Amino acid sequence: MNKNIIKYQAYDATCPVRASLMLLSGKWTLMILFQINENVMRYGELKRAVVGISEKMLIQELNMLVENKLVTKKIYPEIPPKVEYQLTELGLKTLPIVDKLAEFGLENLV
Amino acid sequence: MNKNIIKYQAYDATCPVRASLMLLSGKWTLMILFQINENVMRYGELKRAVVGISEKMLIQELNMLVENKLVTKKIYPEIPPKVEYQLTELGLKTLPIVDKLAEFGLENLV
Repeated sequence: MNKNIIKYQAYDATCPVRASLMLLSGKWTLMILFQINENVMRYGELKRAVVGISEKMLIQELNMLVENKLVTKKIYPEIPPKVEYQLTELGLKTLPIVDKLAEFGLENLV
Repeated sequence: MNKNIIKYQAYDATCPVRASLMLLSGKWTLMILFQINENVMRYGELKRAVVGISEKMLIQELNMLVENKLVTKKIYPEIPPKVEYQLTELGLKTLPIVDKLAEFGLENLV
């Protein structure tokens, strides 16, 4: 019976794993959320923290994260403009996923 | 001090989150591991379970998972050939990550 429940989920568009992956499975998505973490981060800091990401990809990912309400973007009307990113309440809730990725990596990969 | 340690990790090629994402951040990767789970699954079953994946992508992902030692592939010399997939010990260790994805999805998305 329990097995049937799991099988049913697989065919269900409301599968929670699928829903999470739709949001979070980008190559850089969880890495960016991990780097912002509980901090307030300026664009430049984030660019340095997410080693290897291109400018284009970082901007694209950040826009996607803001659109999906995982990250807030605050622009200060200064010259040069200051832009800060921070995780939303929803974004903070992804950190336990990152913790498990870190645990898996630590124990098995690095 | 603690903050410095975290910052150091960000620049480090041995960052465990990065290492895990290199292996697992494919759009379908964790979904396939989730579907195989603790079962032994034939190719056809898996194709039906991972709704929406193309044949090409599923084969490519499975080859990658076998190459990275997350999944074993067993081919029975029958006609038609029977092919079974199962998580390795390493593959089974990714399931806690999937659990957290499921938890996040259940609580926030579906």
